[in-house]
Amino acid sequence: MKPQKKLLNSVASCVDEALCGLVRANGGLSLLKGHRVVLRSDLDNLKGKVALLSGGGSGHEPAHGGYVGAGMLSAAVAGGVFASPPPASILAAVMSLHNAGASGVLLIVKNYTGDRLNFGLAAEQARNHGVTVDMVIVAEDCAFERPSKAGRRGLCGTIFIHKLAGALAEEGASLDQIVAKVTEVLKGIGTLGVSLSPCSVPGCLPSFDLPPGDMELGLGIHGEPGIKRSKVASADEVVKTMIDHMTNPDSQSHLPLKSGESVVVCVNNLGALSCLELAVVTRAAIICLEKQGLVVARVMSGSFMTSLEMAGVSLTLMQANDETLRLFDAKTGAPAWPNLGCVCASGRSHTKDPSAILQSAQVQENAHTEGPLSPVMRSALERVCSTLLEKQEELNALDRAAGDGDCGNTHAQAARAIQDWLQSHVVPGCPGKLLSVLAGLVQEKMGGSSGALYSLFLTAASGHVTEGHGDAAGWARAMHAGTQAMRRYGGADPGDRTMLDALCPAVEELMKVTAAPPGGPMAALKAAAQKATLGAESTRDLTARAGRASYIAAERVTLPDPGAVAVAAIFTAVLESLQGMTS
Amino acid sequence: MKPQKKLLNSVASCVDEALCGLVRANGGLSLLKGHRVVLRSDLDNLKGKVALLSGGGSGHEPAHGGYVGAGMLSAAVAGGVFASPPPASILAAVMSLHNAGASGVLLIVKNYTGDRLNFGLAAEQARNHGVTVDMVIVAEDCAFERPSKAGRRGLCGTIFIHKLAGALAEEGASLDQIVAKVTEVLKGIGTLGVSLSPCSVPGCLPSFDLPPGDMELGLGIHGEPGIKRSKVASADEVVKTMIDHMTNPDSQSHLPLKSGESVVVCVNNLGALSCLELAVVTRAAIICLEKQGLVVARVMSGSFMTSLEMAGVSLTLMQANDETLRLFDAKTGAPAWPNLGCVCASGRSHTKDPSAILQSAQVQENAHTEGPLSPVMRSALERVCSTLLEKQEELNALDRAAGDGDCGNTHAQAARAIQDWLQSHVVPGCPGKLLSVLAGLVQEKMGGSSGALYSLFLTAASGHVTEGHGDAAGWARAMHAGTQAMRRYGGADPGDRTMLDALCPAVEELMKVTAAPPGGPMAALKAAAQKATLGAESTRDLTARAGRASYIAAERVTLPDPGAVAVAAIFTAVLESLQGMTS
Repeated sequence: MKPQKKLLNSVASCVDEALCGLVRANGGLSLLKGHRVVLRSDLDNLKGKVALLSGGGSGHEPAHGGYVGAGMLSAAVAGGVFASPPPASILAAVMSLHNAGASGVLLIVKNYTGDRLNFGLAAEQARNHGVTVDMVIVAEDCAFERPSKAGRRGLCGTIFIHKLAGALAEEGASLDQIVAKVTEVLKGIGTLGVSLSPCSVPGCLPSFDLPPGDMELGLGIHGEPGIKRSKVASADEVVKTMIDHMTNPDSQSHLPLKSGESVVVCVNNLGALSCLELAVVTRAAIICLEKQGLVVARVMSGSFMTSLEMAGVSLTLMQANDETLRLFDAKTGAPAWPNLGCVCASGRSHTKDPSAILQSAQVQENAHTEGPLSPVMRSALERVCSTLLEKQEELNALDRAAGDGDCGNTHAQAARAIQDWLQSHVVPGCPGKLLSVLAGLVQEKMGGSSGALYSLFLTAASGHVTEGHGDAAGWARAMHAGTQAMRRYGGADPGDRTMLDALCPAVEELMKVTAAPPGGPMAALKAAAQKATLGAESTRDLTARAGRASYIAAERVTLPDPGAVAVAAIFTAVLESLQGMTS
Repeated sequence: MKPQKKLLNSVASCVDEALCGLVRANGGLSLLKGHRVVLRSDLDNLKGKVALLSGGGSGHEPAHGGYVGAGMLSAAVAGGVFASPPPASILAAVMSLHNAGASGVLLIVKNYTGDRLNFGLAAEQARNHGVTVDMVIVAEDCAFERPSKAGRRGLCGTIFIHKLAGALAEEGASLDQIVAKVTEVLKGIGTLGVSLSPCSVPGCLPSFDLPPGDMELGLGIHGEPGIKRSKVASADEVVKTMIDHMTNPDSQSHLPLKSGESVVVCVNNLGALSCLELAVVTRAAIICLEKQGLVVARVMSGSFMTSLEMAGVSLTLMQANDETLRLFDAKTGAPAWPNLGCVCASGRSHTKDPSAILQSAQVQENAHTEGPLSPVMRSALERVCSTLLEKQEELNALDRAAGDGDCGNTHAQAARAIQDWLQSHVVPGCPGKLLSVLAGLVQEKMGGSSGALYSLFLTAASGHVTEGHGDAAGWARAMHAGTQAMRRYGGADPGDRTMLDALCPAVEELMKVTAAPPGGPMAALKAAAQKATLGAESTRDLTARAGRASYIAAERVTLPDPGAVAVAAIFTAVLESLQGMTS
C-alpha cells in the first residue's frame, strides 16, 4: 500500500507553499519572515486594540490563516500537518502584534495538549517580555459522554470564537471584556463530526481504515477515533443522530439547548464531501433543529475547518442572543469568512409563487376559437402525422446507421401526441396560436434534442403568423424565423448533416413568396418541398459535424440523415394536403 | 461494483433538497414554487433593471444558485444532476423576473447542446410573451486544440460573467450594453481542468476510470474525457503544463495573453481536492503567471464550479483592465462569492520582518554577567545534570512499563544540553535570566511534552527571581508560579500520575519559606525533597489520567511514574548540592 497521490510539490514544502498561496491570493494578508505566521497586512490598525492570535496544525485549511483580517484574527500561526506550531513562531507572532501597538494579545487555542503547551509557553515568554497576554481554550467537542482528563477536543466551533472575539476587538473592547464574553459564549457551543472516509497526511497512509459504506461518528479533525461506527444512513437520519447526541443531557459534553432558543449553525465540510451532499445535510440540520423547537438564527455551510480530504461533515451549534448575533453579523475582511446575510433562517417564507401572468397566458392559449384557416391546418397536420407514423421504421433504420436508432420513434411520439390533441381540441383560427400549442406538445412529448429543436422552431415561428398575418408571406417568414432560431440555439449550420440540410434550402425557396413570385404560393411550396427532398438526399455525402452522428466516423455513414429525411417528408405532406384541398 | 455511498436521502430527492438547503441557509434567496429555480428574495429591487438568469445541471454547487444575489444573478434554474433544466422552469424563472419589473432578462448559458436548446426555447417563448430577452453563451474551455462543431465547453469562467454582468446590471446598464460588454470579456476568458479522480452521479458508477496515481488533463465538469492522461506530476509542473496549454497559440481555443497584461485568476476546486492542495496550486498558478510576465490582478481560490466529488482543480484566467476590475470588485450579496480584497496580487510585498524588539531581547539574554549566586547555581545545575544522566536507564525502565520507554533519554538530552551550555557560558548572576536560558535549552533540545512542560515551568518561574529577588522566598514563589503554569497549560492535576505528583507537594513545602519557617530555607528545601520523593512513590497506586500513560490499563502499572521520579531526583540533587556548599 502506497500513500495516496496528492497535487503537491513535496511533503516537506506543502505547508509553507499553502501559506504562501493563501497570502499571495489575499492582499490583506502577509507572512512573517522565517515563521509560518500569517499576519494582517494592516497591522497599523491594531494600535490600541486587542490583537487576536490563533493557530494550530496545518491540514485544516482555511483554518486558521483564512480567518485573519479586520474583524477576526490579527494573526495565525501554523504547525506542520496535524502538528502543533513551535513556541518560537507563536512568540514571534505575539511580539509582532505587541510591537504593532496592540493593547493586549488574546491567544485562541484548540484543546490539544501540544497546542496548550506551545501556546502556553509562548504566552509565558511574552509576559516576560512585558506583553499583556491571555488565552482561551476552545474545547467544544460533543463526542464523548465521559470525556477523558484531556478534556473535549477543539473543533470547528473555534471559528465562532474568532468571529465574536474579532468583532469585539474591532469595536475596541478590552482584553478582559473579550475573555469574559468568549468564556461565556464557549459554554453554549458544541460540535460533532461524522465521516465516510479517512484522510491521509501527505506522504502517509490513511489515518484509519473505514470500509466503503461505513461511517464513523464523533471523530476528531485529525482522524482520531470517534464514538460509533455504523453503515451510512440517510442524511436526515445521520443529522438527527448527531443532533440528538449533541443535546443528550446524559452526556457530560452535551450542549444544553431549550425549545424556543436561538442557535447559529455551522455545517462544515471536513474536506471531500461534495457540495451537493453538504447542501442536503444543511437542509436536514435546519429542519431537524426546527423540529426540536429551536430558532435557527444563522446558517453557514462550507469548508471552514477541514481534515485534509476527509469525506465528512461536522455540525457546530452556538446558542445565540441579540448580542452574539450582532457580533456574528459584523463585517470582516477575513478571506475565509462567507458572504452571509443577516436574516434569520427560521420563520421566513422561502418560496414564491410562480408568476400569475404566465399562468393566465397559458389559460388563454387553451381557450381559442376556430377560423377560416382551421380546416386547412387540421388537414395538413393530420397528413404530417400519418406520414411520420408511416415512416417510423424507415427513419429508425436510417438512424441505426449513425445514431441510436430511435429517430423514427421520436417523430412518431410527436405525431401521436398531435393526433391525440386534434381529437379533443378545435384548431385555432390564428396560426400562431396553433404553432404555440404544437411547440408545447412537441416539447413535452417528443423528447430529446429533436423535441427541443422542433419546439424552438415552432415557438420562434409562432410570433410571425399572429391573428391577421396568416397569409403565405407570413408563413414563409414564420418558417424562416423558426429555422434561424434552430440554427442559433442548436449551433449547427447547413452542411453539418442535420435536419437543417433539408430545412434551410426549403425555407429559402419559401421566402420567395414574400416577393410575389410568378407561380404564386403553391408553386413556391412545391419548389420548397422539392428542395427539402434534394437537401435530405445530399446528406449522404456529408460528414456529421453536429448532433449524435458527429461521434461516428464519416466513412461509415452512406445513408441520408434521418432528421433531414423527416423534414422533407413533412414538407411533402403539407404540400400534398394543400394540393388535395385546392385541386 | 456498487455506486459509492453518499450522504443523501435519496437519488430522486437530492437536487431539490440541496436547493432547499441553499435557500434555507441564505435569507437573500427564495425558491420558485413547483420549479428548481432560486430567486433573489428582494425581486422588487429589479424594477427597471436588467435581470440575469443562469443555470444548468446540478452537481456543480455552489453554481448556479449560490451566485444569486444583488450584484450577481437575479435567478438560477437547476436541472437534475448533470442534466439540463427543463424549458418550462427556465420560462417560469424568466417570467418571474419580467413580472418583477425587470427591463429585460439576460440568459447566461454554458455551451452544452441541452442548455442551449432549453434556454433558447424558453427565450423564444418569453419573447412571445412580450419579454425583452437575450442570451450569451459561455464557451471558454481551452482543452481542445481543434474544437468540434459543438464548440468549446462552458466551465468555471461562467462565474466571471455572472459577476461582471451582475455589477453592470446593478449599476443600471441596459441589456444591449451588458451583452456588448460580456461578449467582449468572453474573448479573454479561458479555463482548463485537471483531475486525480473521477466523480460519480448519485446512484451511478464513477463517470470514468482513472488508476490511482494518474491524472487526466482537460476534462469537463461532468467527467467528459480530457486531452491527455499521465502520471500525477508535481503541483508546479501540472500548473505549468496547464497554463502553457491554455496560452499555446497553436491551439484554436487558446487564450492570447501578452506579457505585461493583467489577469484575474480563479483556482477552482472541482470537489474533493483538499484545501491544502488547493492553496499549493494557487501559489503555483500565481508564480507561473508572473514568470510569464503577467500581472496577477486578483485571485479567487475555492469551490466555485464543482463536479460533485472530483479530486481535481480548474484554472480560469480572465484578461483584466480597469473597467473589468471595477466590476469584479463591486459588492455582491451572492452567498457563494468569496470575501475578496481589492488588492493586486502582483507587485506587493507580502512578507514582514519579525519584530526587532524580540531579536534585541534575545541578544540581551545572551549577554549577561556573573554574580554572587552564580557558583551556587552552577554547582546545583551540574549535580542535577549528572543525577539525570545516572538515572537515564532507571527512568527508561520505568517508562517502558507504561509509555514508550524514552523518559530517561529525554531527561538525559536535557542534561547534556545544559552541560554543554555550562561549559561555554558564564552562569548569570540573575536567577531569572538563568531560568530563561534553561527554558530555551529545554524547549529546543529536550523535545516532547516533557520539554514543553519543563520549558513552561522555567519560563513562568523566571519572572519571579529577577535581579535582587534571588532569596529563598523568591525561589519558592518562582517554583510555585512554574508549577501553576504547568498545571494550567498541561491540564493535569495532582493525582493524575504525572510529575505534578512529586512537584506539587514539594513546592507546597517550599512555599513555607515565604512565611519565615522555624528551620530556615535549607530545612524547607530538605522537607520539599522528601515530599517529592514520597510523592513520586505514591504514583505506584495511581491510575494515569493524563499523559501517555493514560492510554494503558491501570492494573498493568505498578511502578512509579518516571516523570515524578525525575522531579524527586532533581530536588534531591539540588538539596545535596546546596548541603555540600554550606556544610
